Amino acid sequence: MIIELSPHATDDQTVALEQRLADPRRRLARVEYEGRRFVTVSGLRDDIDRSRLAQERWIASVSDADLKTFFVRSSFRPGGTVIPLGRTELRAGGDLVVIAGPCTVEDEAGLLATAKAVRSAGAHALRAGAFKPRTSPYNFQGVGSSGLRLLAEVGAKVQLPVVSEILDPRDVQLGAELLDVIQVGTRNMTNQALLGTLGTIRKPVLLKRGSSARLEELLGAAEFIASGGNLNIALCERGIQSFDTVTRNTLDLSAVPALRQMTHLPIVVDPSHATGRKDLVRPMALAAAVAGADALLIEVHVDPASMVRPGDAAQALLPHELEDLLRQLEIVLTAVGRKLARS
Amino acid sequence: MIIELSPHATDDQTVALEQRLADPRRRLARVEYEGRRFVTVSGLRDDIDRSRLAQERWIASVSDADLKTFFVRSSFRPGGTVIPLGRTELRAGGDLVVIAGPCTVEDEAGLLATAKAVRSAGAHALRAGAFKPRTSPYNFQGVGSSGLRLLAEVGAKVQLPVVSEILDPRDVQLGAELLDVIQVGTRNMTNQALLGTLGTIRKPVLLKRGSSARLEELLGAAEFIASGGNLNIALCERGIQSFDTVTRNTLDLSAVPALRQMTHLPIVVDPSHATGRKDLVRPMALAAAVAGADALLIEVHVDPASMVRPGDAAQALLPHELEDLLRQLEIVLTAVGRKLARS
Amino acid sequence: MIIELSPHATDDQTVALEQRLADPRRRLARVEYEGRRFVTVSGLRDDIDRSRLAQERWIASVSDADLKTFFVRSSFRPGGTVIPLGRTELRAGGDLVVIAGPCTVEDEAGLLATAKAVRSAGAHALRAGAFKPRTSPYNFQGVGSSGLRLLAEVGAKVQLPVVSEILDPRDVQLGAELLDVIQVGTRNMTNQALLGTLGTIRKPVLLKRGSSARLEELLGAAEFIASGGNLNIALCERGIQSFDTVTRNTLDLSAVPALRQMTHLPIVVDPSHATGRKDLVRPMALAAAVAGADALLIEVHVDPASMVRPGDAAQALLPHELEDLLRQLEIVLTAVGRKLARS
Amino acid sequence: MIIELSPHATDDQTVALEQRLADPRRRLARVEYEGRRFVTVSGLRDDIDRSRLAQERWIASVSDADLKTFFVRSSFRPGGTVIPLGRTELRAGGDLVVIAGPCTVEDEAGLLATAKAVRSAGAHALRAGAFKPRTSPYNFQGVGSSGLRLLAEVGAKVQLPVVSEILDPRDVQLGAELLDVIQVGTRNMTNQALLGTLGTIRKPVLLKRGSSARLEELLGAAEFIASGGNLNIALCERGIQSFDTVTRNTLDLSAVPALRQMTHLPIVVDPSHATGRKDLVRPMALAAAVAGADALLIEVHVDPASMVRPGDAAQALLPHELEDLLRQLEIVLTAVGRKLARS
Repeated sequence: MIIELSPHATDDQTVALEQRLADPRRRLARVEYEGRRFVTVSGLRDDIDRSRLAQERWIASVSDADLKTFFVRSSFRPGGTVIPLGRTELRAGGDLVVIAGPCTVEDEAGLLATAKAVRSAGAHALRAGAFKPRTSPYNFQGVGSSGLRLLAEVGAKVQLPVVSEILDPRDVQLGAELLDVIQVGTRNMTNQALLGTLGTIRKPVLLKRGSSARLEELLGAAEFIASGGNLNIALCERGIQSFDTVTRNTLDLSAVPALRQMTHLPIVVDPSHATGRKDLVRPMALAAAVAGADALLIEVHVDPASMVRPGDAAQALLPHELEDLLRQLEIVLTAVGRKLARS
Repeated sequence: MIIELSPHATDDQTVALEQRLADPRRRLARVEYEGRRFVTVSGLRDDIDRSRLAQERWIASVSDADLKTFFVRSSFRPGGTVIPLGRTELRAGGDLVVIAGPCTVEDEAGLLATAKAVRSAGAHALRAGAFKPRTSPYNFQGVGSSGLRLLAEVGAKVQLPVVSEILDPRDVQLGAELLDVIQVGTRNMTNQALLGTLGTIRKPVLLKRGSSARLEELLGAAEFIASGGNLNIALCERGIQSFDTVTRNTLDLSAVPALRQMTHLPIVVDPSHATGRKDLVRPMALAAAVAGADALLIEVHVDPASMVRPGDAAQALLPHELEDLLRQLEIVLTAVGRKLARS
Repeated sequence: MIIELSPHATDDQTVALEQRLADPRRRLARVEYEGRRFVTVSGLRDDIDRSRLAQERWIASVSDADLKTFFVRSSFRPGGTVIPLGRTELRAGGDLVVIAGPCTVEDEAGLLATAKAVRSAGAHALRAGAFKPRTSPYNFQGVGSSGLRLLAEVGAKVQLPVVSEILDPRDVQLGAELLDVIQVGTRNMTNQALLGTLGTIRKPVLLKRGSSARLEELLGAAEFIASGGNLNIALCERGIQSFDTVTRNTLDLSAVPALRQMTHLPIVVDPSHATGRKDLVRPMALAAAVAGADALLIEVHVDPASMVRPGDAAQALLPHELEDLLRQLEIVLTAVGRKLARS
Repeated sequence: MIIELSPHATDDQTVALEQRLADPRRRLARVEYEGRRFVTVSGLRDDIDRSRLAQERWIASVSDADLKTFFVRSSFRPGGTVIPLGRTELRAGGDLVVIAGPCTVEDEAGLLATAKAVRSAGAHALRAGAFKPRTSPYNFQGVGSSGLRLLAEVGAKVQLPVVSEILDPRDVQLGAELLDVIQVGTRNMTNQALLGTLGTIRKPVLLKRGSSARLEELLGAAEFIASGGNLNIALCERGIQSFDTVTRNTLDLSAVPALRQMTHLPIVVDPSHATGRKDLVRPMALAAAVAGADALLIEVHVDPASMVRPGDAAQALLPHELEDLLRQLEIVLTAVGRKLARS
């Protein structure tokens, strides 16, 4: 349930409302978006007399009973969400942003080399994983919080904003301090402890679609964050699970225009993880740009052969390949009346 | 098993080979592609002494035991397959061909109106269904063979080659007489009676991917046709089955560059059936062009409201929308160094 | 559309109705089930004035416009369909029938050996494939019509009814002469040319679920046959496509009780093809019996090592394993108040 | 990497090993199972000289480089894992345990009523959710930690061990204090922060399969817990995502015998969530028992109409239906040489 306060509602009235609704079976949050104030109610709502609430003069509206998503819907913010990203911004329907970098933070020299190359190729942000979710506990799981710090330092050196994944709600605060964008990985799209914690901060979140999540479920996950107070969210299509094995996942590119009609949030496409094959990254990146993606997430490494996870070498572009790709993107974007974001 | 004859093999030797291999548990076919002659053996092969055969001087080679596909692989015809299509051609890696038309042949006036509009918009071929496979026997299943005739007449009038689906092996001969391209629908990709019959003619075949077929299975279906003697085949990605319901199927666009590396056959994309939503046809058609599709299959109708299957109205473009799309395709193709086929 | 004739409707009235509805865009069939007479209309129906038809005194009822399935629904034949099968019968909700045999008809000696073993183990019918749909044209595709004849001879010798797959509508007549039950395989569930032809005969049909067909689509395929005049149909769950690779397919066992509520047709389970692993056949066969399956399809071979398709050896039981299974089935069936059909 | 210590390895040697391997890019854990001692290494391992380590006399063995699962494999504990559960135990290959209860902890009176009914019907443990993961933040998400306390009190009153889900690693300690078994839900199977924390306690864990997780991925998730030191794990099949909509999910029952060969962990089946239909719970519960499930998770409610989540009423049995089910289970189990656990 979402209760919108009238512009003239006083703080006392809000507190009174919260007290009236207090119950261990629900959680309340005050959120403010677009100059409007709301109290969101998660959990039990059947005992709340909606029509009586709606009659209060300091309450503007009370949501429908079966509301599933509200803040993330297009209608809530027709102008589209804008997420500041270093010298540029990630904007729904805006110029194309390219976020690039190695899959994993390894040592400082390697990260710096890739970061410089990525910067000089024209990318707008640096992405690298410090916490890596894996299918086996015995695989490399990233260097952890020291990796976040290293990434932040390298980002500052090359003057690129940094993006990295957080897995544990207990690491969210640290991520908010060190990163420009916190990534939620595909394995954690339904991790509600993590989503809930991300709602309590204001740092932008890059929310990846679960590999078998319907678009409505992806929006539901975003609404979990938004209902807590954080609407700085970008959605990322990164391939869905299918029966074919030619590509690692199946890139669901029609999700881009379909999501555009459903939500005001920026839409990111990750062709590297979707296909798992560097020879498919270029055509799929171009196709994504034409289909309307607001940003691309591209895996790049200066020396793929040295990667700790050798499997990922198959999908990482070399810096000069990224440069080529950006040049081609520029041409293709022009053809559809768009352009690359300034870097 | 595929036995390649030497250039100097005589007809007597070929006949002797066929007699030697004759067995109710296998079928033999003589096929000639690229100036090379083969005898293909479907079925039992364990009793054949491959190494002895290979020693015959008039036999050039005998395929590996576990061969699954051969004629449809890139390596067999590196130059790519070219399918004549009216005044133009559908060529792997060639100029983009647009095949458009109504889902279904209904009455003559309607078909002619759409055909003229499609022609004047710049499409290269006319597609309409006379035999419609359906999920319920009580739904409209097309007008049948009279529809094929009508389509052929209308195609001649507007000077467009015509494409239509055949469901029954007993209709293949008629289709070969009346049509320029015979379509095999998604429900019949594994209909081996139909595929086998299509191998006995030389008419081009547009083979649609089964909605849950892996790419290797699609190539296997094409090889069924090719092993009988017909390599005039184009493959069509038309959306695969997934768990999401926002689009009718999930367009697997990375199948285009992936197939390009696997096969020399032209690759067609059908964004209309893949998405089932006309608002997604334009972005997905542009994305397909950029990803390398050789042809697009676009549903168009002059008066969608009048369609016998009202559900399809949701995916049919109006003629002026097709015209717009062709203009945009032209610009986008230029950006990737391609162009529309001449019409 | 389904038009039920009144009991007193004359033949002249029926003919007149057919003439009135004659149109190349629809097909009509007269069907008689449960002592009731119907004219089914496939295809175009929008121009038919349903309410006017319904007013004719010799017409009992006219179906709803959007009817998808009717004859195959539970409500049409609450007593359940009974299919005669040699000395026993396959009946919805009846005693458990076991259909067993080798995947493929190979040579006579082998088939006879397996047939005798299957018979003496207590199975009720013999199943073996003469036409084998395959993913590659170069694999063994069965011995064809000579295999059907051999199967019929062997069945007569061991006094077991025989079941085999037909792929091509042109082979339906031969199948109807030689077989007791015609199987439609998973790859042909949507082959409407085949389904339509099977509607014109009265021979029982074992219709396998497409590997990615929803239950409603399976019923739709059965209705295709039934709308032509043949309601002697059994449905077979044989595993659906999923993302896991531990079993060949995923046996959807809850389809058994779910289908029971939807249809009066007998329900068969094929644990051999569903799992592809003989060690899983026993537990899944027992589970299927407990879940309410009316029949089981079990792959058995006297000498799996000799099989032409070695892959299938992994799923074939030996005769003594079938005997054990039948003994265990008997005990488990008793526990749920059921029993094995008499053999 | 898993390093097994020799029986005579001293604590000093273990500490020295840990110091030698210390690196921010990996995590080490000491685990003891089956009287054997191990140091597990998660993360970076390429710089470790495995062969040199293996030569140390106080090291018994060093695992293979690409090891994915070890402790959860059948070979590690051939006798099967035994999890104490109140007066009985949940044992791989043991007597059947029934865990029952309402989906959600609501008020005390309701929970106590259902708990008493479940107890008197013969169930062995009480399950109810205090933290409920949901697809919308505005749905009821459970009463939280007060619900865990209430569940523990009610369990003590009716003398049943209690099972409930934990979503947040910060709640694991509380769960370990209040519960007998901690459930990890399907949405959190890949939540590695949660799995890692569960590895640091010794409380049994009921790990539900992700709705699109392969069995190898389920075992990988279990290994995440086990590699931290907790091998008290039961696996739960609760239905996988498929394309059909007749049941909420598709119960993958062949996962039971398949997992039995892969792992020594007990295997639980949840027919209530798998099917979402109470009419299918009974046949699927019986089938699961016959297929070898060690335990069943059954949703039961004294008054389904009163449930906060009305959708769940569709799958909850009434207490007398649970009683009937237990009686039928007893008979069916006898038929396969098994029995219900004593309650």
